[in-house]
Amino acid sequence: MTRYKITVEYDGTNFSGWQIQNGAPSVQEELQKAVKSFSGIDVEVYGCGRTDAGVHACAMPAHFDLPVNVAEKFNDLRIIKKAINFYLQNVPVKVVSIEVVNDNWNARFDCVKRHYVYRICYRDFPVVLDDNRVWYIKRNINVDDMRKASEYLIGKHDFSSFRAANCQASSPIKTMDSIVIDELKDNIINGNFLNIYFSAKSFLYHQVRNMVGTLADVGLGRFSYEDIDRILKLKNRKYAGVTAPACGLYFLKADYN
Amino acid sequence: MTRYKITVEYDGTNFSGWQIQNGAPSVQEELQKAVKSFSGIDVEVYGCGRTDAGVHACAMPAHFDLPVNVAEKFNDLRIIKKAINFYLQNVPVKVVSIEVVNDNWNARFDCVKRHYVYRICYRDFPVVLDDNRVWYIKRNINVDDMRKASEYLIGKHDFSSFRAANCQASSPIKTMDSIVIDELKDNIINGNFLNIYFSAKSFLYHQVRNMVGTLADVGLGRFSYEDIDRILKLKNRKYAGVTAPACGLYFLKADYN
Repeated sequence: MTRYKITVEYDGTNFSGWQIQNGAPSVQEELQKAVKSFSGIDVEVYGCGRTDAGVHACAMPAHFDLPVNVAEKFNDLRIIKKAINFYLQNVPVKVVSIEVVNDNWNARFDCVKRHYVYRICYRDFPVVLDDNRVWYIKRNINVDDMRKASEYLIGKHDFSSFRAANCQASSPIKTMDSIVIDELKDNIINGNFLNIYFSAKSFLYHQVRNMVGTLADVGLGRFSYEDIDRILKLKNRKYAGVTAPACGLYFLKADYN
Repeated sequence: MTRYKITVEYDGTNFSGWQIQNGAPSVQEELQKAVKSFSGIDVEVYGCGRTDAGVHACAMPAHFDLPVNVAEKFNDLRIIKKAINFYLQNVPVKVVSIEVVNDNWNARFDCVKRHYVYRICYRDFPVVLDDNRVWYIKRNINVDDMRKASEYLIGKHDFSSFRAANCQASSPIKTMDSIVIDELKDNIINGNFLNIYFSAKSFLYHQVRNMVGTLADVGLGRFSYEDIDRILKLKNRKYAGVTAPACGLYFLKADYN
């Protein structure tokens, strides 16, 4: 067989998430249907991460295999990319790039770092042009306080306070490599836009959304920035803030050695 | 009566345009319904410009009147803005700002400069997250050539080559104050994004979209940048390029003295 790595952009708004589920639209199923349509082969497409309903991706890596005799028919990778995207033409999922990888390369297990971005728009009237693309907050945010709070989350910690109840990870200990909060200046749309970038080898279930919800509570003055340190050390989800909505979260990219 | 100036953001995708039309959804009708819902008054909302089906606005100015006895009930402008936006909650139209103006102030006739932005994304696979927000072009664009071409359009000219057949303006002569082409660097989405800014007192029907279509033809190598000068001087629509699609166009803002 020949193994392909693809990276995928998708609008998660109308999907139940990455993973195939009976009776619900998923990104994985759409990709598998498109690969089947051009190659005739039933494949399983394995993603780097399993995003939730409503979460988007700019470049989600994934892999799938084709038998050598089929792969040989498509020796130009640009043709495979074009063919998959052709069968995805009415679906908000597209292949960004494709390459051949070693037979044992794995999109999930070989990933050494995952990058997410969370987008917030704050202004005093609801979003229009960025509906389903940002978390809309109607009050002013103190971004400096959010930045100070985010520093407590960097490094190796027990993130139990930011872990969803149904998280299946064996340990709540993760290492946050970086959190960067950018204020967008050249946006044509009214209001204030924040991009919050998170990088780590892996994340607990809902960890990014729970950290964002708590950072937003700091920005809104419900917590002081030092409260984040206290909340982290309490190791209990009930002390942290809300889970930020899915529509503001984007799987940005993943790194491999 | 009391006259109000509002500025309005809208997603034009599912509207037949700004102007009320029988049986077709319009931005103007939605605003009039919302004002009626909170005030009980039938008003006409007059816009600065009449955008076409699919064209968006970041801050379209408009005006409407309320009888003094009704206006007196709402002496806090923030309440009026909030009330209109409440009745627009399921509609992709929102009031950005509101102020009281002189009784003879007119959103259309008092405007001294209009600003549009046209957004293009070029990359080798269709847009996903920016669907209905940009003109997607699948080939590489030479932006420097577009910039050189745009310089020929600045100033006072007969823009017949960029005027739609059904334009109702009395004269094809307009003055383009500026055209600025920005390449966005910090976008999280894959691909190359251009924002093309146009400023003038007024524009002919489809003038921006016809100029953008022709500039894109320069960027794609179908015309040289000097061809724009030749096309402009021919004063005939048939020599210019395509009409760029509505989904990439945004009414950005308007200036008043």
